[in-house]
Amino acid sequence: MPDIYFEDFAAGQVYELGSRMLDRDAIIDFATEFDPQLIHVDEEAAAKSIYGGLIASGWQTCTLYMRLLCDGILLRVHSMGSPGIDELRWLAPVRPGDTLSAILRIDDVRTSESKSDRGIVMTAGEVRNQNGDLVLTLKSPMMVRRR
Amino acid sequence: MPDIYFEDFAAGQVYELGSRMLDRDAIIDFATEFDPQLIHVDEEAAAKSIYGGLIASGWQTCTLYMRLLCDGILLRVHSMGSPGIDELRWLAPVRPGDTLSAILRIDDVRTSESKSDRGIVMTAGEVRNQNGDLVLTLKSPMMVRRR
Repeated sequence: MPDIYFEDFAAGQVYELGSRMLDRDAIIDFATEFDPQLIHVDEEAAAKSIYGGLIASGWQTCTLYMRLLCDGILLRVHSMGSPGIDELRWLAPVRPGDTLSAILRIDDVRTSESKSDRGIVMTAGEVRNQNGDLVLTLKSPMMVRRR
Repeated sequence: MPDIYFEDFAAGQVYELGSRMLDRDAIIDFATEFDPQLIHVDEEAAAKSIYGGLIASGWQTCTLYMRLLCDGILLRVHSMGSPGIDELRWLAPVRPGDTLSAILRIDDVRTSESKSDRGIVMTAGEVRNQNGDLVLTLKSPMMVRRR
């Protein structure tokens, strides 16, 4: 059951969200359904591309982050959804066998001017591979119920 | 085989990308894997939420757009990937049975200053439901090979 409210967030907090490995089959399966560009589904074609081999769809990195976010904290939050993403960057390719780790950083918190039941938590997500390279960053406001 | 190059894009172009219906099972299946918040996976809990019923994960709308983009044009483009998304907005809930239609609009084109083999195409994606309501907008640069 959710037990985290708006008042529990503060700028500067960092939450470790855990990690997950993406293997070749997971990369090809995801891309076959959602993003069937050759660099994501065809090892031979990917090897000849500017990426030099198979890479994950950027959307797969996003959904991996979302799952880690859910399991790491979001399912405990009295969340009221998000209006979107202010900036998202795919900074490095994700390759078969990469283990991705995510954190959530709280950049700012403010109460809603129009709706007294909620506040807005400005979040920044970061996903790194096993070498510490940033592969994904995204900034997103989250609406959270007040106590 | 790809046959569309940077020079084929121009500001103001609009590409119709087709449509797809999302049923209840597709919404629950996607969210169970990637975004298991109650509003996306539990009809009873969702009915009691501020949304008044089950709604799709915003990431599912994104991946649906990506698949329509691939099938509608991207698989024919000499794409060199994208650095990210500049702005993404989830504007209205997506509910079971909704049929979503997408378009791609070209906002701007410019050659790369640092790499002579490519240009940057500034794209805007829009997804609407069967009532014409915008449910998703996103702005994203796409790197495309020059002829």
